[in-house]
Formats: sequence, structure tokens, C-alpha cells
Amino acid sequence: MRVAIVGAAGYTGAELVRLIHTHPKLELTWVGAKERAGQRLSDAVPSTAGIAGTGDLVLSEFDPAKAADLADQADAVFCALPHAASAAAVAAIFDTGTRVIDLSADFRFRDVAVYTEWYGEHPRPELLEKAVYGLPELHRAELPDAKIIASPGCYPTSAILPLAPLLAGDLIEPRGIIVDSKSGVSGAGRKPSPSTHYAEAAEGVRAYKVAGQHRHGPEIEQELSLVGKTALSIVFTPHLVPMTRGILTTAYAAPIEGLTAERCREAARKLYAGAPVTVLDAGRSPDTLWVRGSARAHVSYEIDDRAGRVIAICAIDNLSRGASAQAIQALNVGMGWPDALGLPEVGMFP
Amino acid sequence: MRVAIVGAAGYTGAELVRLIHTHPKLELTWVGAKERAGQRLSDAVPSTAGIAGTGDLVLSEFDPAKAADLADQADAVFCALPHAASAAAVAAIFDTGTRVIDLSADFRFRDVAVYTEWYGEHPRPELLEKAVYGLPELHRAELPDAKIIASPGCYPTSAILPLAPLLAGDLIEPRGIIVDSKSGVSGAGRKPSPSTHYAEAAEGVRAYKVAGQHRHGPEIEQELSLVGKTALSIVFTPHLVPMTRGILTTAYAAPIEGLTAERCREAARKLYAGAPVTVLDAGRSPDTLWVRGSARAHVSYEIDDRAGRVIAICAIDNLSRGASAQAIQALNVGMGWPDALGLPEVGMFP
Amino acid sequence: MRVAIVGAAGYTGAELVRLIHTHPKLELTWVGAKERAGQRLSDAVPSTAGIAGTGDLVLSEFDPAKAADLADQADAVFCALPHAASAAAVAAIFDTGTRVIDLSADFRFRDVAVYTEWYGEHPRPELLEKAVYGLPELHRAELPDAKIIASPGCYPTSAILPLAPLLAGDLIEPRGIIVDSKSGVSGAGRKPSPSTHYAEAAEGVRAYKVAGQHRHGPEIEQELSLVGKTALSIVFTPHLVPMTRGILTTAYAAPIEGLTAERCREAARKLYAGAPVTVLDAGRSPDTLWVRGSARAHVSYEIDDRAGRVIAICAIDNLSRGASAQAIQALNVGMGWPDALGLPEVGMFP
Amino acid sequence: MRVAIVGAAGYTGAELVRLIHTHPKLELTWVGAKERAGQRLSDAVPSTAGIAGTGDLVLSEFDPAKAADLADQADAVFCALPHAASAAAVAAIFDTGTRVIDLSADFRFRDVAVYTEWYGEHPRPELLEKAVYGLPELHRAELPDAKIIASPGCYPTSAILPLAPLLAGDLIEPRGIIVDSKSGVSGAGRKPSPSTHYAEAAEGVRAYKVAGQHRHGPEIEQELSLVGKTALSIVFTPHLVPMTRGILTTAYAAPIEGLTAERCREAARKLYAGAPVTVLDAGRSPDTLWVRGSARAHVSYEIDDRAGRVIAICAIDNLSRGASAQAIQALNVGMGWPDALGLPEVGMFP
Repeated sequence: MRVAIVGAAGYTGAELVRLIHTHPKLELTWVGAKERAGQRLSDAVPSTAGIAGTGDLVLSEFDPAKAADLADQADAVFCALPHAASAAAVAAIFDTGTRVIDLSADFRFRDVAVYTEWYGEHPRPELLEKAVYGLPELHRAELPDAKIIASPGCYPTSAILPLAPLLAGDLIEPRGIIVDSKSGVSGAGRKPSPSTHYAEAAEGVRAYKVAGQHRHGPEIEQELSLVGKTALSIVFTPHLVPMTRGILTTAYAAPIEGLTAERCREAARKLYAGAPVTVLDAGRSPDTLWVRGSARAHVSYEIDDRAGRVIAICAIDNLSRGASAQAIQALNVGMGWPDALGLPEVGMFP
Repeated sequence: MRVAIVGAAGYTGAELVRLIHTHPKLELTWVGAKERAGQRLSDAVPSTAGIAGTGDLVLSEFDPAKAADLADQADAVFCALPHAASAAAVAAIFDTGTRVIDLSADFRFRDVAVYTEWYGEHPRPELLEKAVYGLPELHRAELPDAKIIASPGCYPTSAILPLAPLLAGDLIEPRGIIVDSKSGVSGAGRKPSPSTHYAEAAEGVRAYKVAGQHRHGPEIEQELSLVGKTALSIVFTPHLVPMTRGILTTAYAAPIEGLTAERCREAARKLYAGAPVTVLDAGRSPDTLWVRGSARAHVSYEIDDRAGRVIAICAIDNLSRGASAQAIQALNVGMGWPDALGLPEVGMFP
Repeated sequence: MRVAIVGAAGYTGAELVRLIHTHPKLELTWVGAKERAGQRLSDAVPSTAGIAGTGDLVLSEFDPAKAADLADQADAVFCALPHAASAAAVAAIFDTGTRVIDLSADFRFRDVAVYTEWYGEHPRPELLEKAVYGLPELHRAELPDAKIIASPGCYPTSAILPLAPLLAGDLIEPRGIIVDSKSGVSGAGRKPSPSTHYAEAAEGVRAYKVAGQHRHGPEIEQELSLVGKTALSIVFTPHLVPMTRGILTTAYAAPIEGLTAERCREAARKLYAGAPVTVLDAGRSPDTLWVRGSARAHVSYEIDDRAGRVIAICAIDNLSRGASAQAIQALNVGMGWPDALGLPEVGMFP
Repeated sequence: MRVAIVGAAGYTGAELVRLIHTHPKLELTWVGAKERAGQRLSDAVPSTAGIAGTGDLVLSEFDPAKAADLADQADAVFCALPHAASAAAVAAIFDTGTRVIDLSADFRFRDVAVYTEWYGEHPRPELLEKAVYGLPELHRAELPDAKIIASPGCYPTSAILPLAPLLAGDLIEPRGIIVDSKSGVSGAGRKPSPSTHYAEAAEGVRAYKVAGQHRHGPEIEQELSLVGKTALSIVFTPHLVPMTRGILTTAYAAPIEGLTAERCREAARKLYAGAPVTVLDAGRSPDTLWVRGSARAHVSYEIDDRAGRVIAICAIDNLSRGASAQAIQALNVGMGWPDALGLPEVGMFP
């Protein structure tokens, strides 16, 4: 299967390149970039230097007017552009009939009003209903027919995976959920900025967009409301921590009477049977180091009986499971292949 | 004023050495260590190499039976030993009438039963009532007469400082408080272990002692109950993040009707007037990078109206404000000097 | 091909597990560990948690007396033990006729006297002549018949790869070579120690074993002498830098009259044709970040005309190309497969 | 003594703020910044938030035409601007008769041609002869009368300090010196760029400006030639390593016949008597962690007899000893005060 990447010079693009290179069914035939158009892929993604057939691919600028040409060269297209820019590209590719996996936020929302509130006007709102939210564990059945797969955000992946089994099984109160997330710096993308400047990101931990200001909040709420079958709102606090990759999300919720941690684990094991999600045994707590470079998520559950709270924790690699590996997983499922086909499941430890 | 450090070869000991070296009223006359006894201080704390009068001090083993000799050489003693070991040393020094500032947990609890539950039998329980919990902002009046100052734990400092003004002012519900803390690795001390091994601490974030298992939980509860005038229990989740110094604590609580973030800030500014605590303006969120090496704490307040939660955040340097600088601050206050006399207030940025 | 790992709980063992998991021709059937014997692999290598067929393998202690049993379960054995311990295990496996790839230093030296000087008495010196130094680029022809493959050290790999083409082509003076290497902390292994304690390794750079005291010096000299066809000695300075993986080696040598950097590059491109070594173009300098998790080495050449020095630089991942991936590469070559079969060549960027 | 900082919002500016705050003789009365003019200092340097008299200073833009106004408010001015911009400011302040300590490269060169070659045309070349190179250990006698003190570059400081005693004492050959330096990322300044972007600086080590392309090379050569009384040229290779602060320089030189490491140490101890330079004992090797935040440099010497090389190593904090603390040290010496008056000498360990 020939695949293309629009936006190959960013971090999720580079991660797609890495993952596609070892995938037995995918062949990278086209790579796109805007500012770096004309360069070799190895100029933009130096980890491909010297690798024939990959590093020597030349980056082209994607022109929506010529989407048909791209469609001739690829059976599926990964779109790793910033939001809004992505919608235009995705729409053009959709119009050719080629399957698109979009890593931006542009097609993640069912309600266009929510999108508009957080991201601005949507270029092609009528396409939202064509898109499937690409968290394979929750939308498996819809993926084979999906022409647009909206790959989830990194924070949402890390929040939804641990909480979904609890809400699906009515094991927690849907009200009062707190999501405290700690992300590595690569989540902010490749564009340099003061907050991602080494000297100001190393040796520092900070919260940002506190108190309902982060765009991933409504995305988490959409999916948790869906799985919990009730409209819910959460407190979401993202933090930046000094590491390159990884998100650790610690979620707090009120358990139903008599709930045990083991019952939470069982619910998760059942929901995630066959999927690249590991439910850790009692006494083990997820560590982002254990999933670095991996398509797997690790989740754990503990209950603080005295204070009456479930503490559900999840670790993912934000660029892999939180973005690029998950995008390929969704394509795998869409094609009827095993979830983790060709994806690294054993993380790079240490 | 001549001072001694029992346990000078550990991290809080080394930090005391650094801070005392620039303090205008303190002179370091004696340094103790067990395994490194006989070495020069510069062998144990290499940052003192070549500094006459400091690096060339020779480490001695503290012998409780000869506490009187130590008392001859020092007007105050900092005790930076592990718990239990510390109690024996503190008691021996106390018996000589010399003032002791203890950085261990041994004299922090008012209720010996709590100590016993978490730390084991107390060697000298009758001394607990002689000790003052050395958070100067809350126990200022008691410090001048204190013969034993029990310097607070690092996590408790970072949790109590942001929450105390809210509880003191009845601005939040005392029930349901969640304390999610992120600590640098130096908090685990100087003894190598798998969890502090570079390759397994770098590039990884993890929670540990989840669901009411960490010893600092009851310490936080004691002080918050005191300031809130009601017995309360919290959910406390400590996390290890890949940095050397710093704790960021994000606390969640239910606000009283109509509470604004500005009112929280005002309460904190009032409580902390003149103390080395900065209440950040609206829109700024604490960063451990901003307080590195500093005696200052930074706190902030935001309210998530939709979800009904105050988010109170605090950043400290765990070894400075969370340990050694706070110990000196308590001594300063005990001596009637300004809180921050001789202490670095401008952190090392970056 | 069924393979076993003796010493699977260390870092090179864990890296072998990761690499074997995605190798199309290798199946991991047995894992060994001493202190962790009886545990599941996922207890020792948490990145394998939840991965059926890998994480649930149970670690066994290797008993040389029962090497035949191991030989029944594996067609090749990777031995990732400390030196000396390794020799005994390798010898026992060798005696069964099963191919062994040894990641320790025990079979790297041609001259037993050099081994003895640096590592102590050799348990089975007569086997040294059976071993092939497993740097495939230099010993390709010998690998198919090798029963013992002595996988190179991490520093030597990073020093030999950039210098070999220069010495082989008589482009530099063999005298006066300086090798200044910067290594990530994982090179020191998994056992905690003061020098690998997070708080003392982060934010610090230091040289160690300065002036001819590091064991990898004579290993580098052996191979460079071989390729340069003259006995040479080098100055080798290893440094520890605050990162988990990677070695950057900067080597300095005196060029022959009229040498250009491009001629150095050509020599290297020719020697490394088809091998997982990328010779960077003029103006690009290797970065350990570009080869993280990869089986590839990056090398570059520049000439300082004024001062009369070639500066040859090499970046590798010490655990991958510097250890485990190179061990598999040697096996691949030994089996007649492509060098990089099943190995990640696109590093994890970022 | 009232002092001003032109360029207070950069990293060396922020470090000056930190150091001046605890200096007993200096009072910060004016802070300048261009883009941030009008902001409070605490907006630019968040470590000053809440500190009365410092954090609430308002940043002004420096106007050379109104240098006299600044001269009314300050008895000495630190100029921490980029090169070229600095020369204009320094000249204007010089014209008022006020003492200037310039942290840029603009007044470091004795030969204007060298400046021009590396930095472009000099705005006020006639002032070069008024400037003293502010490495107090080498130019002590000239500092009291200096109206312009040209504070050394960070790399030069780390290269000159270990080599000067060897050249001054004719203990090494002046030809063939190699300087291999490893710098933390803060040396690149506060402006975000791809090479200082966290995700591309963390976990990566790389050389840059290899083979005589870095501007600090000629600066090192000027001072070493001066102290060695012969024009010499060096090979200088700067590297970027993943830490915020610190430079470790490893220098290689050919010793004179019979030289011992102890003789090197003695030469250094003698030259640096009374200065904030520690000559480490045999067997100890400098670590940037030991001098973090400190005005001290650590140097060591070893000899590789077999290969015939002295290995001289130096660790400094690039922002402190390599910039701001050294600037204050030069002022201290200029004023007749002790070198390290008011400067932190015990580094922040860990």
C-alpha cells in the first residue's frame, strides 16, 4: 500500500516516516512540506540521512488543486499539518476519493460549534460527519468505511484510554472528573518558541492554559460523554515537563460504592482485549519511559478508600501512541489488519 | 552565630553549606557525616573544593554521647539525617540546651500515633511537644522560643503554602482536596537506587505511592487541618519528573459560592506579607525554573467556573525552600532577623 | 531462527529484546537473568508489559552445566553479561556447538596479555582465536564461520568507524591520534552508582579515566593498528554527558599532505558501501539525536587547514549500534542476510 | 555603588541581576531592554517576581544620545548586548566617563583586523586600546584604570584558564594545542532557534562550527599567544550538550620533556593564588555540576605518558564564571575589592 505524508517535516511527520519505514505493508512514496519544499527528506528529518528510498525522497509542496496527482501516487494519505491548514488539504484529498488520516484537530469534533469556539471557522464543516474519531479502541467498527480518520490529540488519548472503561462500565461518577496531565516538550511541535527553548524547558515544570483554557479539554469531554452516555465536563490541567516524549495523565474520579481497583482493571482488560493497551497489575504505576517510541499505552488503577477517589493513570508516547502510531493503527484497523501490525510495541527502554 | 551541620554530606546538608557560606550572620564551624567521617568536606561536597574555611573542614561522626562537645562549638545545629537516626541526634543536642533545626520528619507530628503509623516507634516521644513545625509563615510566633524546629517536608511545603490562605479564609471546602505534586529527583536523596538511576529517571514521568501511601500525606493533613480548623483528609499523588530540583504542586478544591481567583490572591498576599512567598498575578503560572536555588515560593490561583474548582499551584525548590533555605528561614525568624536574611531570593534563571 | 539472551535484564539485554521483537527472522525463546530469575521478563524490562510471547517469558538463571538444554531451545545465543562472567557462559555454549554473540569484552582481544592487563585472568584463553571481532564493516568475511562473535564496545565502535577509512587509505598519520568521546549515561549499565545517580549526572559533564586509564583504549588501538597495519597508540578521553543514549566521538589526526575532507568522505563511502553507516555531506555534523534507537552510525569529516588536523566525528546510539543492534547485525552478516535486516535504521527523531 | 544593566532581559543580564542582588556593595538602579522596554523586570526575568526593589524595576530602552542620563543614575554600567549593538552603547557610556563592563565581544580584540574578520566592521575601533580584557587572573594590574572592561567569552574563559599556567611556565609546546569544549545550551542565548529547541537539544550531543569556524577560536589564540609570548594557533571544536549551564573544556598539548602532572598543578596553584580558581588534586576531574551558579573555575591536569600529551581540563558555569560573575569579578578587582566579593563561590550541588 502506497502512502504519502503531507507535513513530513514536523515531528509527527518524522515519526510517521520512522514507523512506515518498518511497516511491512506500507511504502512511502510521497512526502510534503511547505517551507522545506525542494529539500531532501534527510535535510528535514536527519535521522533518514543515507537511507536509500527514504532519506533521498524530495519534499514537495502540497497543492490542493493538484490533489488528483497525489492520489495517483498514494493509496492513503497522512495529513500532519496544523489545524485549518489541514482541513483544506484533507478536503481536497477526500474529494479524490483517497483515504485520509488527519492528525490535526480539524475533523475530531462532531459538533461544528465546538470546533468553531476553539479553533475558528471550519473550512468544510459538511465533511465532519464523514470523519471517524480515530481512537481504534472506541471506534473500531466505524473505521473500515471511514474516508476521513480524525486521529485523536495526544492529551485526549492519554485521558480517554484510562477513563473510558470506568465510564462505559458505570464504575465512576461522570461529574467532578479531574485530569492532570504531564507532557513532554515535543507536543508543542517543531517550531521554536520561548516555552520550548531548551534553557527554559529543562529543569522546569509548569502548568499552562489552566482552568479550562486548553483545546484538548472539549475533545476529551466529547469522547468521555459519548462513552459515558451523558454530557460531562472535566477539569483539565496540562503541564509541561522536561522530557522530549511522553504524556502521563493522572485522572481522579469518584467511584461507585464498593468499587475495587481490580474491578477497574478487569473492565479495562476486557475493553482493550487485543488492542495495544496494557493494564498494569496492582502495585505497578505507568512510566512514560516504558512506552517511549511504542504504539502501546499503559494504564493503571488504584483506589484511595479514605478519600473516596479512583486514581486512573495512563502513560503514552505523545508522538507515537498519541499521534503517528495511533494514526497507523487506525489505518491498520480500517484495512482489516491487526491493530499493531508493523508498529513497535516494545518501547525503547531506557 | 556559629552553626554545625549533622549530616553534611547529603543533599540538604550540601545545600545548607551553600546557603550558610553567604549568610552574613552564620559561620559554619562543624560538619558531620557517618560514612564519610574523616574526609574533607570538599571530598563529599565537591562544590566546596578549594574554598578555604569551608571545603577544608573535616567531617566528623556525630556521637550523641559527646553532644556537649558539639554544643561548645556551635550555637545552633542543623540536623540533616534520615528519620529515626535524626531523633536520637536531635534529642542529644536538645539535652545540651542548644537550639536544633531538624530537617527530618521526626519532630513534625503533633500526634505521636501518626508518627508511629508511618515511621515506626519514636525514640523520644516526649520531645514532640517541645518542637515547632518550622513553616515560618504559619508558626511565626512560636519560633523564637522553639528549642527544636521541625523543618517541613518538601511536598508539604508545596501543598500547604498555596492551600493555607484558602482554608484560613474559609474560601474552599475542606473536603475533597486533591494534591497532585511533581518532584525533581533530588528529593529522593543522595543514595543511588534504581528509581533515581539516570537512565531510568531521565525522559520518564511516573506517579508513585499512589492512593494514600506517601508519608507526606498525613503531614499535609495535619497542617491543613490546623489552619482550616477541621480534620480533613486529602488525596495526595506524588510524581517523579526528570529534573534535579523543584516541586510543582497542583491542588484542586471546591470553592465557596462566588469565589474569584483575585480574592484567593488577596488572601494569600495578606497572609504572606513580608514572607518569601510571591503570589503571581493573573495569567502567570508558577514554574520550578523560576525558583531554582531560591528561598522563595511562587503560588498562583485560577478558578474553573464551569467545573467548579479552584486550581492552586505552587512552585518551590525542594532542596532550598523545601528544605535547607526554609530551615535557615526558621532560624532567622527564631532569632528575630528578617525571614530571608542571607538567603538567595532571586532564583538561578535559567 | 530461535534465539536466547543470557543477561536479558540489563540494558543491552533489554535492547536485544526490543530489536528481536521486530526482527522477521528471529524468535526469542529463552531469557536469562541471575538476580531476577523466576520473574517475568516484563518485571525486569517493563517496556514488554502486556506483550504476549515476550513480556510473559520467565527469566531463568543460566547454568553452564546445562548449556546443552539451552542449546536445544536456541539456534543462537546472545550473551549480555559482565566480563569474566560472560567468558564462562560463552565457553559453555560454545562447547555445545551453538553460535554465540558475546556483548562483553571477553573475546575482543587477539592478545590474551592485553586482556589480562585490563580485565584480569581469562577463564578460557584458548577460545580467543575462535572469536571474530564483530564489527561487520571490518570483519565481514570472517563472520559466516564465526562460532563466537565478540561484539565491539560502544566507545570503540564510535572511534573505529570514523578513523578506519582514514587509516586504511593511508590518509592520516597513525601517530598522535586523539579520541575525545562523549557518552550518555546508559553506557555505565543498569546498576545504580553515585556517578549515574540522576541528580549527579543531570546538568553535569565530566571526563573520567583520563590519560590512558579506560579499558576501551586498548580495544580501539587493536583494531586501528590492524586496519592501519602498524602498531599505534592513541589518547582516549571518555566523558559522561547528561543524556541516556548516544556517543559522540570527536577524533583528531594529522592529515597527509594535500588531503581534503571530500577525499576522506569518499574513502568512508567506499569502505561502508551497503553497510548501515551514513557519511554526512560537507557542512553537516553528526548528532546523537539523529541515531537514537538506530542501527546506523553517522560519520563526518572536516579539515582544519590552518592547524593541520582532520576532525573525524561519529555519532552512534551506544545501546543500539554500539551494542545490541551491532550484535544482531553481526549475526545477520554471519547468516548471509543483509546487514540491517530487521533492524531500525531510521532513528527516533526527536 | 549604583550599577545599571543594559540588556537585562537576556541570560547574562538575568544572571547579573541575580548576582548583584546579593552583592554587598552593588545596588541595581537601572535596567535596560529593547523589545521588553516598559515591562517590569519580573516580566522578563520571572525569578525576580515579588522581590521589592528588583522585580518591580521597569525596563527602559537605552538611548545612546541620552547616555548622560544613565550616567547620572549609575556609577558603573554592565552592557550585555549582542556584538555591534554593544559597541555603540559602550562607546556612548564611555564618552560620559562612566565605567563600562562589556559582556560582548566588541572590545576583546587588540587587533581590529581580527575583529573585522570575524564580526564585521567595528563602530569605534579607536576605543579598542582603551579596553582591558577582563580575565582578572591575567590582567589584574590593568583593571583598576580600565574604563572599558571587555569581559571574556565563555569558551575562551574555559580554555585560557587551564592552559595559561602551562604556557606561562613553558611547560607545553605552543604548537598543536587542541581545545575540545562541551557547552550547555544557555550559551546560545535566549532567542529561540532550531538548535536550542528543547526536543532537538535534549538527548543529543553534537559538534558545530568545526575546523576553525567559531569566533571564540581567535579570542583564545590572542590570549594564549600573549601569555605564551608567541603567536600560536589552536584547533577548537565546540560541542553542544544537553544541559542548561556549564562548559567543560578538555585541552590536549605536548608536554616538555619530563613534565609531571603535579608540576602543572603547582604552576596553576601559583598563578591562581587568591583567585576563584580551584586546582583539583590528582585523581579528581572537573564536573560542570560542581560549579553551577558559581564564580569559581575548576581545573585539573593529567599526563598520558605513553602518548605524550598533557590533558588539561576546566569546568565553569558559562553564565557565571564564563560571563556575569566574571564581569563582576573584574569590577571588584577594578575597585580594589577581593575578587569574589559578594559572588557565590559554593556552586549549587546538585
